[in-house]
Amino acid sequence: MKTLTKEKLTIIGAAGMIGSNMAQTALMMGLSSEVCLYDPYEPGLKGVAAELFQSGFDAAHITYTSDIKEALTGAKYVVSSGGAARKAGMTREDLLKGNAGIAEELGKNIHSYCPNVNFVVVIFNPADITGLITLLYSGLKPSQVCTLAALDSTRLQSALAQHFNIRQNTVHDCRTYGGHGEQMAVFASTAKIGERPLLNLIRTSELTDQQWIDIKQHVIQGGKEIIELRGRSSFQSPAYLSIEMVRAAMGGDTFRWPAGTYVKNEQFDHIMMAMETKITKDGISYKVPTGTPAEMEELTHSYEHLCAMRDEVIAMGVMPEIDKWNTINPNL
Amino acid sequence: MKTLTKEKLTIIGAAGMIGSNMAQTALMMGLSSEVCLYDPYEPGLKGVAAELFQSGFDAAHITYTSDIKEALTGAKYVVSSGGAARKAGMTREDLLKGNAGIAEELGKNIHSYCPNVNFVVVIFNPADITGLITLLYSGLKPSQVCTLAALDSTRLQSALAQHFNIRQNTVHDCRTYGGHGEQMAVFASTAKIGERPLLNLIRTSELTDQQWIDIKQHVIQGGKEIIELRGRSSFQSPAYLSIEMVRAAMGGDTFRWPAGTYVKNEQFDHIMMAMETKITKDGISYKVPTGTPAEMEELTHSYEHLCAMRDEVIAMGVMPEIDKWNTINPNL
Repeated sequence: MKTLTKEKLTIIGAAGMIGSNMAQTALMMGLSSEVCLYDPYEPGLKGVAAELFQSGFDAAHITYTSDIKEALTGAKYVVSSGGAARKAGMTREDLLKGNAGIAEELGKNIHSYCPNVNFVVVIFNPADITGLITLLYSGLKPSQVCTLAALDSTRLQSALAQHFNIRQNTVHDCRTYGGHGEQMAVFASTAKIGERPLLNLIRTSELTDQQWIDIKQHVIQGGKEIIELRGRSSFQSPAYLSIEMVRAAMGGDTFRWPAGTYVKNEQFDHIMMAMETKITKDGISYKVPTGTPAEMEELTHSYEHLCAMRDEVIAMGVMPEIDKWNTINPNL
Repeated sequence: MKTLTKEKLTIIGAAGMIGSNMAQTALMMGLSSEVCLYDPYEPGLKGVAAELFQSGFDAAHITYTSDIKEALTGAKYVVSSGGAARKAGMTREDLLKGNAGIAEELGKNIHSYCPNVNFVVVIFNPADITGLITLLYSGLKPSQVCTLAALDSTRLQSALAQHFNIRQNTVHDCRTYGGHGEQMAVFASTAKIGERPLLNLIRTSELTDQQWIDIKQHVIQGGKEIIELRGRSSFQSPAYLSIEMVRAAMGGDTFRWPAGTYVKNEQFDHIMMAMETKITKDGISYKVPTGTPAEMEELTHSYEHLCAMRDEVIAMGVMPEIDKWNTINPNL
């Protein structure tokens, strides 16, 4: 099996459920001939490495280490699921503070050990914020760091397919934009059910207003549903989709969903959020989506929600005031 | 993405860690455009299906059901990880009896609902025995049912690579035969370290007799090591390798490892165990391996161990006496 690249891919958080699935997925896709697994939890990391060795993957040289310097040195692609999960008794703020700190460290480590990295994918939550912090401290260009947002769009596609009782691949161009959290903007105007624009179907007997509201709610709450059903957070879909993003950045198949990207324009500024994006060998680029006035208003709400979270992290001292960002990263 | 076949693939035990990984692996490999997930545990099954829907796999029609009749009807390929795991306080016999009963039911269900199935892969433990029981009650030909044994050979490859500190893909033709349990026959005579036959290296300073004994022990105990390291049974490697077997049976890439197969010849009879096998569209075929006298003796020990387990299951009443087998399955 020929791999897409010979450049080193480092998977951070590889001992976890998402990270170990990322590793398997990357090996199955034949992304790189040099795959390095990192996790601070050494026994789990060894166990995951053993699983991969015992799968007989032979196109890649698989290494593992609990030394972040060794893991990142020479890395050209980095994907990180290495945040803490929310535990019982932890407030949302506790989680935010903890993972913001982890993102700061990740950014600084990238800056120190692999400043020549091509592309970084950050997926630990809240990904919009952890991605932003990582970008800031890494010193990378906005085109080099992206976050996972696609799950919301695939949830929309899946929910619409179930509602209309049709094959999922006949539901096209599902899109959510803005934050990957409780305040995302679920767009109807991009989507098509077969050949028919979704907008033409809302408020008809085929999809009542209430049904559409329920579907949007289901999309926003999608993660919770899997926890209830499976007794654990989703890990297969975030792992798989993240690795699809890495593949696109390596010049492989097109990534078909929105990703979180650093946004700087007249409407939205100094923020990371899902836009209409394209990931290629040159990195990630975006266009501001166009939607109905109501959709654009939702997007603005989502942006404001993210700004508030960003400002909370600034108040925590994890990031400096916005006007100082370019002293840390001149690309911002 | 074009799939390898349009014929229905049914994954049994899909709510579990192995089964859900099998499903993702099969979808990533693009095996079939018709993938059905079965598990008696409906919430978990729904959660796994949601994960797959939300991964955006769009080459396959993914369905799920907790009705075994619906799951198997029309199935041309079946892979089952759907046994019980050994739990605290359970004796080996408890597990054997429980999973033997599950295998009997699986065989009977295949016979009832998909007698025209092409190929069945059984991987729940003890796989040599559950595969044998499934074959018996399914009424299928020996060429149509196989079990997972490859993990032992990949463990050997991985252990040798680590010992010699070389890339795993430079260790060739690692083979274990016989049972997939504590009495397997770990062959040295097939393996090569680079260009050098392993046999020439044992009892030299490069690989002392004690080191080789330790490696064999490590291979036999491989599963336990992962439980200790990861806090759970291995699931990625058994899932991945099982799906590689299905792929080979669909006419895809060659399966490079031994598989468990029904054996009937002068030396070994009325048993399922790992031989030198080949899996093609015509099913599985085997050759009895040739090894050193000591290796062949180990293989005989392994066979005898399996015969004892088989006879234990006969004594339990799950299978009839051997001379009655062909009244249930004329192909045996």
